[in-house]
Amino acid sequence: MKRAPKAAKDKALLLAASEVRSNSKAIIKANVSDLNFARDKKLTAALLDRLMLDEARLESIASGLEMIAQLPDPVGTVLSTWDRPNGLKISRVSVPLGVIGIIYESRPNVTADAGGLCLKSGNAVILRGGSESFHTSGELVRCLKRGLKSANLPEDSVQLVPTRDREAVDHLLRMTKYVDIIVPRGGKSLVAKVQKESKIPTIAHLEGLCHVYLDAAADLEMAKNVTLNAKMRRTGVCGAAETLLVDTQAANILLPPVASTLLDHGCILRGDTGACHLVPEMERASEADWSTEYLDSVLSVKLVDGIDGAIEHIRKYGSSHTDSIVTDNPKTAERFLNEVDSAIVLHNASTQYADGGEFGMGAEIGISTGRLHARGPVGTEQLTCFKYIVRGNGQVRP
Amino acid sequence: MKRAPKAAKDKALLLAASEVRSNSKAIIKANVSDLNFARDKKLTAALLDRLMLDEARLESIASGLEMIAQLPDPVGTVLSTWDRPNGLKISRVSVPLGVIGIIYESRPNVTADAGGLCLKSGNAVILRGGSESFHTSGELVRCLKRGLKSANLPEDSVQLVPTRDREAVDHLLRMTKYVDIIVPRGGKSLVAKVQKESKIPTIAHLEGLCHVYLDAAADLEMAKNVTLNAKMRRTGVCGAAETLLVDTQAANILLPPVASTLLDHGCILRGDTGACHLVPEMERASEADWSTEYLDSVLSVKLVDGIDGAIEHIRKYGSSHTDSIVTDNPKTAERFLNEVDSAIVLHNASTQYADGGEFGMGAEIGISTGRLHARGPVGTEQLTCFKYIVRGNGQVRP
Repeated sequence: MKRAPKAAKDKALLLAASEVRSNSKAIIKANVSDLNFARDKKLTAALLDRLMLDEARLESIASGLEMIAQLPDPVGTVLSTWDRPNGLKISRVSVPLGVIGIIYESRPNVTADAGGLCLKSGNAVILRGGSESFHTSGELVRCLKRGLKSANLPEDSVQLVPTRDREAVDHLLRMTKYVDIIVPRGGKSLVAKVQKESKIPTIAHLEGLCHVYLDAAADLEMAKNVTLNAKMRRTGVCGAAETLLVDTQAANILLPPVASTLLDHGCILRGDTGACHLVPEMERASEADWSTEYLDSVLSVKLVDGIDGAIEHIRKYGSSHTDSIVTDNPKTAERFLNEVDSAIVLHNASTQYADGGEFGMGAEIGISTGRLHARGPVGTEQLTCFKYIVRGNGQVRP
Repeated sequence: MKRAPKAAKDKALLLAASEVRSNSKAIIKANVSDLNFARDKKLTAALLDRLMLDEARLESIASGLEMIAQLPDPVGTVLSTWDRPNGLKISRVSVPLGVIGIIYESRPNVTADAGGLCLKSGNAVILRGGSESFHTSGELVRCLKRGLKSANLPEDSVQLVPTRDREAVDHLLRMTKYVDIIVPRGGKSLVAKVQKESKIPTIAHLEGLCHVYLDAAADLEMAKNVTLNAKMRRTGVCGAAETLLVDTQAANILLPPVASTLLDHGCILRGDTGACHLVPEMERASEADWSTEYLDSVLSVKLVDGIDGAIEHIRKYGSSHTDSIVTDNPKTAERFLNEVDSAIVLHNASTQYADGGEFGMGAEIGISTGRLHARGPVGTEQLTCFKYIVRGNGQVRP
């Protein structure tokens, strides 16, 4: 796979997409059997919905694979190149990471997305989805394997753990000799468990405790729009805002209209004393609210002492994911952008832009909140590392 | 430290260097006490030599800090920048990793090198050297702290674990909330232990099982020079060659003169059947030799079936560190450079170039054999990660 040319990888992806389309009946049949199993396990309606595939969702899985085929090849890029005084020519070239283990929950689309991204980046991948999606994922992996085979690439470079047995995960997390990287993708408890138990380095997305800070110099209309979008566009995504910080200096001007917009859209607000004073419809926040990723129509609201108070609050409670400032003061904006230590910091834009597609990186496998290797969206480029190629003409070191 | 300007960091490094010079008596006195402790522990002469500091070695520590001050600032570099169709301006900017824990053995110069590299890259560092170097390292850390203080930077950004207690290491490896990265620096057993026990991501240099492959199309003089240098220039460094692979096709021409050069320089050769047949002075190699990092004047020698045999041997026994091919055939060279999966691959040059300084990267903290984040020399640039800064004018996501 490391040496697979772009054309072969893209052919495999396109063929896998058409396999998904032409095998839709078999995939949906496998999915029905998974859904029955999940109902027996009394999974919530929300989880059943994540698991369910219909023709429309299958079409989006197939077109997702086609989109990955359109991306540039992340492998073999000369990242930099320089000559040494002794004549050695050094270049740093991107190469695949190796074997990637992906552990995720019940969304079967992750099987195709993650499999496709690893294929495109020349990696081998071992997929382990939630036990409820076992048969559906099996069918999707079959499509990927058929694509690989038709493109004369090794079928085994995409594999599904062939058992639902939970011990298989423990085993996978200890295969340091065979697996280079583990990517957990799912809720906070899954990710925390994998990070805790893995003997293999992980690229992980732990949690998105995103903040919007409304500075005293914020434009009121922009403050309303950005806050509403950051919280309510989709509440279940990791880039959704969970805490609104408002500069005390202008809170009486900014907060009541922003809060009223949010309340009108069905958002529950939980404020500190000052915020509740300005907006009586707010519930009182507890200390726990500042570190809660609601992933729901709930927003905690706090008055802070200007940019310093905002930075300090985010330092204490943030998850280094995505934070945004709304202000017309460019100096304040630069301080926020430089001093807030998150993977993504925004000025006058919604936190919901925290997404590989929105960054122009194509599909992604998650948003990394770690500090090694990849921060922010993990796309095909982040699934590579590099090597140094040194060309000489007989140099020996003095 | 994250926000420290280049001038302040460089000032701290230069002041620390002059503190090392002006406190040489106190440092050497502490070193004498460490040496006495080490002798009581019956450390080998080689380890005592590594621990020992005199005026000359102190001068090289001081000038090492001055060299780090000369390096460019790795923090705040705009790595890439692009605009989105919706007007968002995205840039990827280098930032420090955070808090780095460094666990090393008895060389006190690591205290200054590692401390200086972390300082330059805006990181905080917790140093834990071998118990034998405790007092010496304490004095060197004092110099770094004085430098930081005089430059108005936080003294506590360089810290030494304040006890020799072994449990402190176990504790450090579990401080996931406070420490972002662990860098073990030392022998294979130290690194393996740290990697096994750390709950914190590591950047580690495990072992340098480096190969030189002499292709049938190699120039004989170059083959002699490169092999001799790769093995014998310094045998104790990680970039020293441990195995010589020779193309069977030309072994009768290449091997006898190369072997004779090595034997003349006091190198012990351990060969497979074919090699021993060509050079009767060779000892017979056992299977274990192919995976032994001698770090000594010993070289294992094997005849292989051309470039394919060489690539396969390195895949099976190599440590993904540094490997070199000697050939005048550019096609064979390109295959080796592309297909050997090591951090550093060389064509017609000695493996002993595996060194951050030789790469023009300045000082380094080690050569990473891992695949995440940093491969090859870990200098100041590799001690940073990045964040995304997004500048908008009110964008909300549809």
